[in-house]
Amino acid sequence: MAYPVIRYAQGRLTVLDQTRLPGAAVQVVLADLPAVEQAIRTLQVRGAPLIGIAAAYGVCVALRNCADAAQGRAEAPEVLRRLAATRPTAVNLFYALDRMRRRLAQMPEHGWLAALEAEAGAIHAETAAQDAAMAAHAQPLLSPGAAVITHCNTGPLATGGGGTALGVIINAHRQLGGVHVFVDETRPRWQGAHLTTWELAQHGVPHTLICDNMAAMLMRTRKIHSVWVGADRIAANGDSANKIGTYSLAVVARHHGVPFHVVAPSSTLDLHLDTGAGIPIEERHPAEVAAPEGHVIAPADTSVWNPAFDVTPGELITAIVTERGVFRGPKYDLRQAVK
Amino acid sequence: MAYPVIRYAQGRLTVLDQTRLPGAAVQVVLADLPAVEQAIRTLQVRGAPLIGIAAAYGVCVALRNCADAAQGRAEAPEVLRRLAATRPTAVNLFYALDRMRRRLAQMPEHGWLAALEAEAGAIHAETAAQDAAMAAHAQPLLSPGAAVITHCNTGPLATGGGGTALGVIINAHRQLGGVHVFVDETRPRWQGAHLTTWELAQHGVPHTLICDNMAAMLMRTRKIHSVWVGADRIAANGDSANKIGTYSLAVVARHHGVPFHVVAPSSTLDLHLDTGAGIPIEERHPAEVAAPEGHVIAPADTSVWNPAFDVTPGELITAIVTERGVFRGPKYDLRQAVK
Repeated sequence: MAYPVIRYAQGRLTVLDQTRLPGAAVQVVLADLPAVEQAIRTLQVRGAPLIGIAAAYGVCVALRNCADAAQGRAEAPEVLRRLAATRPTAVNLFYALDRMRRRLAQMPEHGWLAALEAEAGAIHAETAAQDAAMAAHAQPLLSPGAAVITHCNTGPLATGGGGTALGVIINAHRQLGGVHVFVDETRPRWQGAHLTTWELAQHGVPHTLICDNMAAMLMRTRKIHSVWVGADRIAANGDSANKIGTYSLAVVARHHGVPFHVVAPSSTLDLHLDTGAGIPIEERHPAEVAAPEGHVIAPADTSVWNPAFDVTPGELITAIVTERGVFRGPKYDLRQAVK
Repeated sequence: MAYPVIRYAQGRLTVLDQTRLPGAAVQVVLADLPAVEQAIRTLQVRGAPLIGIAAAYGVCVALRNCADAAQGRAEAPEVLRRLAATRPTAVNLFYALDRMRRRLAQMPEHGWLAALEAEAGAIHAETAAQDAAMAAHAQPLLSPGAAVITHCNTGPLATGGGGTALGVIINAHRQLGGVHVFVDETRPRWQGAHLTTWELAQHGVPHTLICDNMAAMLMRTRKIHSVWVGADRIAANGDSANKIGTYSLAVVARHHGVPFHVVAPSSTLDLHLDTGAGIPIEERHPAEVAAPEGHVIAPADTSVWNPAFDVTPGELITAIVTERGVFRGPKYDLRQAVK
């Protein structure tokens, strides 16, 4: 990989601090549970799959100084509870913590920490394998020379593997050639401007940064092949929660007849939910909008609405790509599809 | 008025420097032609109608030291040419300069400067009267307690009068009550965050700032009564050029069945144009996107696309409000309508 995103070795969890990009690529060690919680909350570590991996390793970090398996089991519920409370929307977090909870319930008395570490490592390795499978499944949906639009960041930085939607695009650049990526800046946190442009430059993929509100004019004035985004949680009917602005982009794509694709591992599916109406939407601090990164843009007491995610209805999604294959809309029955 | 936007008296042109808002309300004197050009180019003075008024007064500023009418006439073509070159998209600029050109062709030998000043003052006064007429015409399209969305800034700051789209909203707040305004921040220059929130606070109108990409989710999750925007140039078929992001908002409004209204004086109509395809679209500096107000958000060499305007097709516009009345879509024949 061009840059290390997350690494757990000899009991040390090291991550690339994504809040410092694109200015500096700084590795930080997350030495204890509060550091892991803080890293997830402040978006040093972000991206739905990567949050899951970080939380799984976070369980190991939190419990590794326990004297024995009994103490680990005793402390685990509080650790799991605290990690689950860091971000509400991405389901991968809860999926990873469930895996760790099950392993904790069945871990051996001797080598219990190694068993936990192996489980977290497996989640990480599976994510990388899933990313590769999604890129392969999606390749027929692209063509050489395609101009595409993406939103937020869904590259290696978001998964610790090859990436979801941006992984598909980077793979298409390598396999098909000629791909050009229009990158939504992705207000309010600018993940597109900060992270996606940086990743595409690392991988040598030609790209152009736009403001989110320019995508409609782009589709009207140039030939856009398709839109590619990730997801934080997908309901059984295909309704997909993703970074705020995704729904707007899906509406605009539909208006222009541009195919709109969601790429996410099946751990993103929340098949307990019939529709997206049940997905909790995190609202973040008003300052992200009114004073982004400390740069004040509005009067101090201005009221702000700052939902971090929106839900794109399944009927606006041309296809959902998971590691199990490509599911095509506009109607989805994902309970049947992934059975 | 709560704050002076533009004033010409005793040969001095004074404007509120809009690039300093909302932090500071600073008046600057534009003492010569280069200062007027610079103020328009750098958006110290912006908003399609206000650009026209500033350019008309700018002709007076540029020529007032001429010895006589003959010198004024001799220097006028270069002055008009330079002012016309400041911004390409808003037609009000060319309308105001045409008015001044005609006055220059017919001005008296004695009192020639007073005649020019009177013409510029008339353009200013007519704009204010038109704003009031538009607010009155539009009032039946609103209702008490309406939640509305607006984009960019179209208040008194944009016209030197009562405002166009925001003037309608401020008037509805006074006359009907209960209005709540969701304000698009309006990337890349943040006119919504900087100027519209500030103006609504000055006028006591309740409002909430959002990122441009949140409007779609807002329409999906809350009852939005209507959208109100201005225009920089309107073709005979209703196609309307306005701040980048307007078209995206129109597409999203149509998808949700939310009425979408354009408010602009008839000087904004460019009836030489059959459609919006002929409207030149200004592309501005990449740094507005990649390093807004000096705050760097993307790697230094990132390629950027930065169109300052887009064109919303007439068929997405529910009604166009001018001082002559309300024209309803989806089909417009504005040559017939304003004959």
